Amino acid sequence: MVPRYSRPQMEAIWSPAARYRIWFEIEALAAEAMAGLGTIPQQAAQDIRDRGAPRAAAIGEAEVARIDEIERVTRHDVIAFLTFMAEGIGENARFMHQGMTSSDVLDTCLAVQMTRAADLLIADIDAVLAALRMRAMEHRMTPTVGRSHGIHAEPTTFGLKLAGHYAEFARGRERLVAARAEVATCAISGPVGTFASVDPRVEAFVAERLGLSVEPVSTQVIPRDRHAAFFCALAIVASAIERLATEVRHLQRSEVREAEEFFHPGQKGSSAMPHKRNPVLSENLTGLARLVRGYVTPALENVALWHERDISHSSVERVIAPDATIALDFALMRLAGMMEKLTIYPQRMQANLDALGGVVHSQKVLLALTQAGMSREDAYAAVQRAAMATWQALGSPGGRDFRANLLADSEVTRWLDAGAIDAAMDPQRDFRHVDTVFARVFGAA
Amino acid sequence: MVPRYSRPQMEAIWSPAARYRIWFEIEALAAEAMAGLGTIPQQAAQDIRDRGAPRAAAIGEAEVARIDEIERVTRHDVIAFLTFMAEGIGENARFMHQGMTSSDVLDTCLAVQMTRAADLLIADIDAVLAALRMRAMEHRMTPTVGRSHGIHAEPTTFGLKLAGHYAEFARGRERLVAARAEVATCAISGPVGTFASVDPRVEAFVAERLGLSVEPVSTQVIPRDRHAAFFCALAIVASAIERLATEVRHLQRSEVREAEEFFHPGQKGSSAMPHKRNPVLSENLTGLARLVRGYVTPALENVALWHERDISHSSVERVIAPDATIALDFALMRLAGMMEKLTIYPQRMQANLDALGGVVHSQKVLLALTQAGMSREDAYAAVQRAAMATWQALGSPGGRDFRANLLADSEVTRWLDAGAIDAAMDPQRDFRHVDTVFARVFGAA
Amino acid sequence: MVPRYSRPQMEAIWSPAARYRIWFEIEALAAEAMAGLGTIPQQAAQDIRDRGAPRAAAIGEAEVARIDEIERVTRHDVIAFLTFMAEGIGENARFMHQGMTSSDVLDTCLAVQMTRAADLLIADIDAVLAALRMRAMEHRMTPTVGRSHGIHAEPTTFGLKLAGHYAEFARGRERLVAARAEVATCAISGPVGTFASVDPRVEAFVAERLGLSVEPVSTQVIPRDRHAAFFCALAIVASAIERLATEVRHLQRSEVREAEEFFHPGQKGSSAMPHKRNPVLSENLTGLARLVRGYVTPALENVALWHERDISHSSVERVIAPDATIALDFALMRLAGMMEKLTIYPQRMQANLDALGGVVHSQKVLLALTQAGMSREDAYAAVQRAAMATWQALGSPGGRDFRANLLADSEVTRWLDAGAIDAAMDPQRDFRHVDTVFARVFGAA
Amino acid sequence: MVPRYSRPQMEAIWSPAARYRIWFEIEALAAEAMAGLGTIPQQAAQDIRDRGAPRAAAIGEAEVARIDEIERVTRHDVIAFLTFMAEGIGENARFMHQGMTSSDVLDTCLAVQMTRAADLLIADIDAVLAALRMRAMEHRMTPTVGRSHGIHAEPTTFGLKLAGHYAEFARGRERLVAARAEVATCAISGPVGTFASVDPRVEAFVAERLGLSVEPVSTQVIPRDRHAAFFCALAIVASAIERLATEVRHLQRSEVREAEEFFHPGQKGSSAMPHKRNPVLSENLTGLARLVRGYVTPALENVALWHERDISHSSVERVIAPDATIALDFALMRLAGMMEKLTIYPQRMQANLDALGGVVHSQKVLLALTQAGMSREDAYAAVQRAAMATWQALGSPGGRDFRANLLADSEVTRWLDAGAIDAAMDPQRDFRHVDTVFARVFGAA
Repeated sequence: MVPRYSRPQMEAIWSPAARYRIWFEIEALAAEAMAGLGTIPQQAAQDIRDRGAPRAAAIGEAEVARIDEIERVTRHDVIAFLTFMAEGIGENARFMHQGMTSSDVLDTCLAVQMTRAADLLIADIDAVLAALRMRAMEHRMTPTVGRSHGIHAEPTTFGLKLAGHYAEFARGRERLVAARAEVATCAISGPVGTFASVDPRVEAFVAERLGLSVEPVSTQVIPRDRHAAFFCALAIVASAIERLATEVRHLQRSEVREAEEFFHPGQKGSSAMPHKRNPVLSENLTGLARLVRGYVTPALENVALWHERDISHSSVERVIAPDATIALDFALMRLAGMMEKLTIYPQRMQANLDALGGVVHSQKVLLALTQAGMSREDAYAAVQRAAMATWQALGSPGGRDFRANLLADSEVTRWLDAGAIDAAMDPQRDFRHVDTVFARVFGAA
Repeated sequence: MVPRYSRPQMEAIWSPAARYRIWFEIEALAAEAMAGLGTIPQQAAQDIRDRGAPRAAAIGEAEVARIDEIERVTRHDVIAFLTFMAEGIGENARFMHQGMTSSDVLDTCLAVQMTRAADLLIADIDAVLAALRMRAMEHRMTPTVGRSHGIHAEPTTFGLKLAGHYAEFARGRERLVAARAEVATCAISGPVGTFASVDPRVEAFVAERLGLSVEPVSTQVIPRDRHAAFFCALAIVASAIERLATEVRHLQRSEVREAEEFFHPGQKGSSAMPHKRNPVLSENLTGLARLVRGYVTPALENVALWHERDISHSSVERVIAPDATIALDFALMRLAGMMEKLTIYPQRMQANLDALGGVVHSQKVLLALTQAGMSREDAYAAVQRAAMATWQALGSPGGRDFRANLLADSEVTRWLDAGAIDAAMDPQRDFRHVDTVFARVFGAA
Repeated sequence: MVPRYSRPQMEAIWSPAARYRIWFEIEALAAEAMAGLGTIPQQAAQDIRDRGAPRAAAIGEAEVARIDEIERVTRHDVIAFLTFMAEGIGENARFMHQGMTSSDVLDTCLAVQMTRAADLLIADIDAVLAALRMRAMEHRMTPTVGRSHGIHAEPTTFGLKLAGHYAEFARGRERLVAARAEVATCAISGPVGTFASVDPRVEAFVAERLGLSVEPVSTQVIPRDRHAAFFCALAIVASAIERLATEVRHLQRSEVREAEEFFHPGQKGSSAMPHKRNPVLSENLTGLARLVRGYVTPALENVALWHERDISHSSVERVIAPDATIALDFALMRLAGMMEKLTIYPQRMQANLDALGGVVHSQKVLLALTQAGMSREDAYAAVQRAAMATWQALGSPGGRDFRANLLADSEVTRWLDAGAIDAAMDPQRDFRHVDTVFARVFGAA
Repeated sequence: MVPRYSRPQMEAIWSPAARYRIWFEIEALAAEAMAGLGTIPQQAAQDIRDRGAPRAAAIGEAEVARIDEIERVTRHDVIAFLTFMAEGIGENARFMHQGMTSSDVLDTCLAVQMTRAADLLIADIDAVLAALRMRAMEHRMTPTVGRSHGIHAEPTTFGLKLAGHYAEFARGRERLVAARAEVATCAISGPVGTFASVDPRVEAFVAERLGLSVEPVSTQVIPRDRHAAFFCALAIVASAIERLATEVRHLQRSEVREAEEFFHPGQKGSSAMPHKRNPVLSENLTGLARLVRGYVTPALENVALWHERDISHSSVERVIAPDATIALDFALMRLAGMMEKLTIYPQRMQANLDALGGVVHSQKVLLALTQAGMSREDAYAAVQRAAMATWQALGSPGGRDFRANLLADSEVTRWLDAGAIDAAMDPQRDFRHVDTVFARVFGAA
């Protein structure tokens, strides 16, 4: 992922040095397990751990370059690493990796990296959830117009809007937790996964120490449906980000102006148009969501490996595992900050709510008419008539609003008087159940 | 979905008549709930149920055409349906749909359809699992060569291969169960989801009767991340199908011939080449997997609706909800039948296992050499030497096999005698842990 | 594709009867070519044509069912068709399909169908282009605000907006023409494409009669990169549809109201909110665009067939070839009608243009200041200052507009007097080059 | 893109320094055009060029960091760059970027980068084409079995196989050339693309100097359907790579062994199984193809920007423009090298061709029987009978081959004697038209 969209903590998970350190940990743990089973000498496991640990810990740019150099000869990354480690461990290094295959190391390492990445992403979502909850509580009863099809529909509250996004991210969090569990498996099963040369107890030992489950049946590789499920979970979170970002972009439109991304002192909105304050963060998040979603297809195509395994998934994962998690980590934290600092304009919300002359209350008037005894068809026609008249007079000086149009319609007043109409249009009615929904989403107050 | 890939039971879920019947059930239940709350007269709910139920039950092609005709005027599907029902229910029909919005009906109906579809798909997977278990048990100890990169690696059993696929489908089943729960929610919350005109107890009543959960916060629509998760779960199952189909395609290759799709009497493999028996079922499954995966992207793009809702998701779902579930249902049942009847050739498996002169045992010889005290580097070189010599002589009359090449190498025999080499290459060693894996996958024997 | 999104002309191209008629035509032409070369008797070709033509022409539902029935035995579609035709042609039917393979018929037929579909789609685009041109000419000089990031930027004309969409569809048309040429190839090359049993002149003859090119090298199948390119071209057109649909959805928003989809008499916007007139056509188009784009991935996955061919592409194409072309045909014609009848509100456009107190002219004032000698940095700061003050006073009674704020700023008036400011903000300047762009897009006036 | 899959020449196109140098070139050319038109002083254009050029040329890591630092304050990349340049150019820098908008610079720069990338990719394809042509010529008449469905079908030549891939890459090249032309446009049209503050002649001048066309109608941005078409073209080339890579993976299978990737001295195939020589390059290419295809969906989603433009495409392109072109460049050059050095085993090809006892000739015998007067149905049955008998006896000692089975069948010998059967099975017949195809693909010999 390009540096612009990378945060150091997530990048670190995917660095070559981090990978090699995990490889070492897997090899050292496997050796300890084998020593415990008597497969290799205790001293060998001891040497691998004691001499290997400082060597692995010291891996920096120069050491990575050295391993790369060995790989250019061997054309095999794990063998290059083992050769590099053997230089420091000495003769007993020959007991490393006994009966194992590269995939045992590579796939278990990927499991460690993906679970670490998942942990970060879950923490990121928690930050988003905290920001959303805070703003939702703050605006629990801030009236705003609800829009369907981009058209004013009925009143809602800004808090309710945010509660919907909160619930979506909470679902995304659950999916991430499930996806983390899917990929958190360890396989040390040797060539084609038969344990012919490595005892299953080695796998159990390494898994337990690394906080992973045992992969029930690996065929040299951990099956890639697990990884596909992981990337799908990321993509759905990305889509949730896009939905909220799209909301902010709409709210910041010049004609709407109900909310605005925080504008930093010194920030310039446009090289050409200095008055412009653009929703660049949420537009950026929209783009990042597209990126993260784009990694789903290659992940799905990675599932159908040939026979016990092929290596076609590897190049894909070298790219999309860091790219998807880094981009999503960046996006979630950007979103959390954006929502925390979002400038919200309740007055503009009220102004927009009033802008259509009261037609947003039409459904409730329709209901009152039918309850008063008018047929649904007639009531619909009457309300539509008043609404259309209001609509067409919008902005004209002296144009009647919806209430006035209703009162001027004898078919309406045959069923409802002014008091009944006002009762139907009372905004307090609209928000009666806000607390019900808040209790569902955020728990009891 | 084209008829060729459609099974009647799944098709029926998505038929217009089925949809209208669910719509009616939702409206009738909502009316009953409202009558219980005193919002509408008991008689109204009674009439809706008593007069509506037979009318809904009788919906056939002619009635669907009639509703379509009404829709051509109203340009609104739910209003067209309500109008059609009102013709049969009479005056009290005006109490139907009170305070509700079309999405309440549409989205709750979709939830019912998707859970029904999920139930069928879960049953389909069970059929696949049963077939895989049966064949795995049958071939638990049938030796076959394990292949990595398409290259012979080490011995495994055909049962182990199938156990891996079984475990993958079992995971797919769990994901489907989770996805079913995700979409099994009911929303009856009225315009923009505020419950301004409909009591939340109506929603609770309808949900309970339909076997759904209450959607905690709907914004007129049920949020589309749920549906995206559903289609992702389908796509991962489709990829599992492709992996198994690809395995069968490989096994049926002319050069491999370890298994073959059942060849029906009367079937013609090719219009031109009568000797050909082609793996057409598994090739077909490969294509169907591509189709089902292709529906993920539109489903993800459906998540970011505008504000409280727009209707852009609707056309997508009218197509992909039936298409994805119908195609997957067909594919799973085709797969189950194919695996049940798959012709398996253990003799060919043994012949292929022996075909490379024994080099598939090289890793175990390598291990024996290092355990005997040879350095890993030297052992690797020696084994590679013998393996390459064997490889190059393959098929030549009088060419030495791997065992002979090892015995001819003094660097090898310095560490291992013939007995030790034979012990290392003993096929019984390879399968020691087959039972362990079977117990993990299928439970205790 | 579901009937709701299908037009009869495009559906007809993909009907079973149409497919069988094309199959017959290919077989009859091939037979004529072979008779010409002396490979089969003249009388055979004559019988195939004379007796086959009426039989093929008469294929209706009953005949399709009969062929399906034969296929259930043979499990091969082309053999089933040949058997059906032989029943009518008699003994000389044995000369049909000589040396050919099913793919010769299937792939050449698909080429015919795809080119016919492309022709319809090109005509559809022409309808869209005509509607866009008409509306663009009509509103060539209708002032409207240009928006970047959803924020008012500078004035433009509604005609210019439409010109941009026109140019995009014109490019889409060119891509469709190129994609049509890609798939318009004929292959009659026999098993694995070697022409071992069929003379290349047969292919040339059939190609020429069908208006296709000869496929230079087929390997039994026409290579699928051609088809992938075709579906990509459709997807890009679909994206152009989405861009225009998104524009209309924005313009119809309650806060914007610059344009509106035509509202049919009798149409009901919402079952709940009778005042609502929703941009349902453009929302529908947005969804259809997602669908058409979704078919690209399976089409790309179809390219890498195994060896000379496998059949995995077939199930994919049976679905996506009709679905993508039918959905796109429907979408394009819906779009053309929508744009023709779109209600456009120039007064609302002017009102929105004026709504921000003149800050949309800030860039031109900035330019005037720098040209008068102010440093770019200082000018930017001054203009931003005035714009922000204007912005914050928006809607307040007595709030100063942008012009007033500039005149109140001594740093500005040091460089520009009122006349110079008015000159910079003169709307006529903005549209000086509209004709230039129109000439580029639509040709000389 | 990760360094492992990056080549320096393509990486350089996308480096920050390269981007800034192109930005400068655009600004300097625009200033020269404006000076020519009298919009800014000649001296200003002179200073921008003379003082700016060395400053731009000297941009290295330190300067990039300095620009990044400015951007952290301004939060705008182009303003940061202009500020940096102004520090070196002096007072006349205020004439830079006059009437222009950031997108003028950014989009035109992207056009330059994408055309440079396309040029490299076209050269890469030429390398692939050269390798394929060389190997095709070499093996023009090398017999090998053609396979459909993975099943032996009829003889073909290895050269013919390669000719098919050659033709596919040649089509990919044409598509790249077309895609290059699509993105090679220049837009200098100012805010919302009206040319209100910049003369169209400036655009024409810059376009001409940069070797680009003028974008007929830009709306501040160059429309993104162009870029989508570009990424589609890359994806189709990637799919062609996958098809050829899949072929090589199949040919290198242990059971097939008809070709093998070059095995480097020192290379280790597997950490566990030293005899293994794996098709790791072609597997890697398969994965890279998935990656490149994955970028199509985000590119398509980038098309529908809001109104005149939003910035959501930007983050997507910052990632996928370099990633897709770098990965494809790497993949093409890896493929070219792999095909040049591919080890091909004609003897194995012949052995496989003979392995099924001659049934690969069944279609030609079928044809001979029908031409001799047998009904197609009877001939089909007879040939299928002989083929099945041959198939079942494969590998059995004393099993009859296809020819023997035919001769033992009196229904066959009623129509054909041994000589006629041998003539039908003569391999020379199969390759009669190889030259025809070669002439179509490679031109006259």
